[in-house]
Amino acid sequence: MPHLNRRAMIKIASVGTLAAGAGGARASAVVGTVRKWEIFEITLTGPQSGNPFRDVQLTATFSLGNRNLNVEGFYEDNGVYKVRFMPDAEGDWSFQVSSPTHALDGQSGRFTCVAAAPDVHGPVQVQHGFYFWHADGKPFQPFGTTCYAWIHQSETLQKETLATLVKAPFNKVRMCVFPKSYEYNHNEPAIYPFARSSAGESDFTRPNPAFYHHLESCVAALRGLHIQAEIILFPPDDRWGYATMAADNDDFYLRYVVARLSSYRNVWWSMANEWDFMKAKKESDFDRLFRILSAKDPSNHLRSIHNGKVMYDHSRPWISHASIQGDSFDKTGDFWNAYRKPVIFDEVQYEGNLNRRWGNLSGEEMTWRVWRGVIHGAYVTHGETLLTPHDAFDENATPDLWWAHGGALRGTSPKRIGFLRGIVEKLATAPGARNGLTRSDDQYYPNVVQYADDDKTAQAVLYFFDYKSPIWYEFPLPEGQFTAELIDPWSMTRTVQPGRFTGKSKLRLPGKPYQAMLFRRV
Amino acid sequence: MPHLNRRAMIKIASVGTLAAGAGGARASAVVGTVRKWEIFEITLTGPQSGNPFRDVQLTATFSLGNRNLNVEGFYEDNGVYKVRFMPDAEGDWSFQVSSPTHALDGQSGRFTCVAAAPDVHGPVQVQHGFYFWHADGKPFQPFGTTCYAWIHQSETLQKETLATLVKAPFNKVRMCVFPKSYEYNHNEPAIYPFARSSAGESDFTRPNPAFYHHLESCVAALRGLHIQAEIILFPPDDRWGYATMAADNDDFYLRYVVARLSSYRNVWWSMANEWDFMKAKKESDFDRLFRILSAKDPSNHLRSIHNGKVMYDHSRPWISHASIQGDSFDKTGDFWNAYRKPVIFDEVQYEGNLNRRWGNLSGEEMTWRVWRGVIHGAYVTHGETLLTPHDAFDENATPDLWWAHGGALRGTSPKRIGFLRGIVEKLATAPGARNGLTRSDDQYYPNVVQYADDDKTAQAVLYFFDYKSPIWYEFPLPEGQFTAELIDPWSMTRTVQPGRFTGKSKLRLPGKPYQAMLFRRV
Repeated sequence: MPHLNRRAMIKIASVGTLAAGAGGARASAVVGTVRKWEIFEITLTGPQSGNPFRDVQLTATFSLGNRNLNVEGFYEDNGVYKVRFMPDAEGDWSFQVSSPTHALDGQSGRFTCVAAAPDVHGPVQVQHGFYFWHADGKPFQPFGTTCYAWIHQSETLQKETLATLVKAPFNKVRMCVFPKSYEYNHNEPAIYPFARSSAGESDFTRPNPAFYHHLESCVAALRGLHIQAEIILFPPDDRWGYATMAADNDDFYLRYVVARLSSYRNVWWSMANEWDFMKAKKESDFDRLFRILSAKDPSNHLRSIHNGKVMYDHSRPWISHASIQGDSFDKTGDFWNAYRKPVIFDEVQYEGNLNRRWGNLSGEEMTWRVWRGVIHGAYVTHGETLLTPHDAFDENATPDLWWAHGGALRGTSPKRIGFLRGIVEKLATAPGARNGLTRSDDQYYPNVVQYADDDKTAQAVLYFFDYKSPIWYEFPLPEGQFTAELIDPWSMTRTVQPGRFTGKSKLRLPGKPYQAMLFRRV
Repeated sequence: MPHLNRRAMIKIASVGTLAAGAGGARASAVVGTVRKWEIFEITLTGPQSGNPFRDVQLTATFSLGNRNLNVEGFYEDNGVYKVRFMPDAEGDWSFQVSSPTHALDGQSGRFTCVAAAPDVHGPVQVQHGFYFWHADGKPFQPFGTTCYAWIHQSETLQKETLATLVKAPFNKVRMCVFPKSYEYNHNEPAIYPFARSSAGESDFTRPNPAFYHHLESCVAALRGLHIQAEIILFPPDDRWGYATMAADNDDFYLRYVVARLSSYRNVWWSMANEWDFMKAKKESDFDRLFRILSAKDPSNHLRSIHNGKVMYDHSRPWISHASIQGDSFDKTGDFWNAYRKPVIFDEVQYEGNLNRRWGNLSGEEMTWRVWRGVIHGAYVTHGETLLTPHDAFDENATPDLWWAHGGALRGTSPKRIGFLRGIVEKLATAPGARNGLTRSDDQYYPNVVQYADDDKTAQAVLYFFDYKSPIWYEFPLPEGQFTAELIDPWSMTRTVQPGRFTGKSKLRLPGKPYQAMLFRRV
């Protein structure tokens, strides 16, 4: 495991200690260098009385040339305040802190942002309509998985989760800030996100710094593994009151999380999981929360909201991409037309053997769902709910299921998902490719991916026959010359077909289902 | 093969020969006996001049007690006219022929209808809303197949088709009167349905009796195998002009076919295949044809019409059941609500390996489609388009594909369809069962069949888990005690689960997809 516990942030000396007395002039100093897309953190000292989490405001304005970015700080603990910032451009940045609280106001400083580390590509962004790229231009194809409450499990299990992710094919993890209360999720978390009375009552105006240190170390660990942390801010499955906080507490919590975490380059924001199942909130509440999130996140991380049964209007301006529940992969084009944004099927049910509708896909079916989504130009998120026979029939068992707890993966689909990821990532980075999984409807096989926006310049065409089993097919190729490979997505074999192919090309197929054919431009 | 070539109709001495001179009194005589649901045929002699097929009308009125049924006759050939009738009740029937043509008018006679042969159960009818029964009350569950143009192939192939059907699990064959012009269907028929000029022009006012003798022998052969002949009257795939006849020719052809074939108890009428693809006809043309069919068929055989993309309004009074193309099995309940009639998915694509969308289901997928349909309370028709590797890659090959030509079945689904048929037929005939495949929506597994209209009195409950792979499931059983059998639809095994089950019953499952569980009332 590569440095899982290294906190990849630069701590600078407390700028606040540079301050003169109240109202006096404050010094400005170059306080260090930071690599692009790492975290620059200002530490300040201020009042401890009252509820500084909520009552004290501070903002730092970071400037480079004529760019100015306002970044909210937060109260850490014990009189310490922090402002965190992820610079996205090299150069000499300056900053100035402003606050109604005199002890924090007016602090300023400078730092130099130097080139990113070689393996750091910056946050993931939407480009070219329906696709994802890192900020440095490297294509990113989400192959996510789901571990809703992994950070709330035992330390041993969390370590196992990270060890699994090191070898797993996933580059995004859907995870909740809050612990989960649901079937198979009855344990209390080791650390709660808010201060609690001895009677177990939460004070939603007082975050628990120890909890956030832990959350941050988890996000940082994923960042070290080049895994995007899709942070679900408001999950519905709750017994502690987190899902039913008052609006002002929601707003405060959101700003606090953003202040702490927006400087982590691998953060994606998911406003809610199954937002329509959160009966205490109206759609307008989520709209308000999105406005806050858009205004307060200086790094403009991806923003989505996941549906239960009712689709949110993903065309709204604060939404970066549609995060959809279901398996209507063939509607990807309709979603594109409706939202003009990328489409991720973030819950397509889980590989598993539960008695529940949502948790008992065979490994084969999970694999085909990922193929179907990708081939339609969308992205698909994995999940696993596989009981061992022992867990299934022991009434007292408290099984670890990857979907909620993390731990080990036992299913047959991850390896195959990795196989597919390998194929499309290589295509996306090939010369001339635009990362464009452009769906192209063939009359008989609408299941076509072309890695270009224009048929004529497609660098590659990938066909997937799903449950269909033709013994030959006449592939309508774009202009130019192509090689062909027969792909078996389950046995994970690639068989080069002899020859070069141009125009309508009739090729033999095995006459069995779940085969694919990949054409690449010579 | 049991008596494939036996014409199971009773020929009586020409009643016409009993006639005295024109205008004279005509004798009435008991001319024989006929078993119930067999064919009673009157043969008459009349004019040969002009076009007697079209110009001469004759009707026989068959009477039993106070029932009177009008049955149209037809011109056979060489001055011979016939009226065919299938009595549906035992007793002493009388008949009287009326015709504007003096030589045919006024002939009368009597015959006795005796009990049906032991293995004859009468035509299939709709009863209890959504189900099929033979006229004698024996449940009928359609497990059909498709051989559109089998009667237009070589004699050798037709014999092979029948030999295949003897062993196949199918009890209904979808077949066209007319030959088929389509991919893989380029051969000319041995016998054409209409008289043709030396230049190959058809005279749609002159049926070819030799052709109809052949069609009748084919329908009779199927009858001998207890197979329903679903006769498609107007198929769209045509190059001879049959699909674009003038309306009066359509009407005449329809009446002629009905006069010849309505006395065959195994006839089902399918007005058209993909009616919306017949560009020369409007929906109102089919309405008109259905009115004629309803009026002219004294035996009231089942009447349906099959869609391409546009659904016909199956709620119309002349439709006996919905004959649907597609795989929207989960919409069966909606179709029931809309039409209040049984639902047969008569084209769900075919098991095959063609390059065509409609012809390359794997055997597995075809099997699951039949299960899905049945489990939703519908019925599903099989078809097969499996090329041999030789046929697939020989440019000059003219392969025989079961779907159109008949011949041999090569697929893996028929055996499994037979396995399912065996299960549900046995359930339907169990004491207390009502042949009622009543869909009952379970929250998580809507795939439930209960063999009773009322949950509480269900004699059996059949669960199918499709692609889902739970390791246990809590089955909500109706009141009473049940046995349980785990069914593997692919390996065709049935494994009795020890014990008796009452109420919510938690049973172990193999944790692999495509399993079923059958509960039967003790």
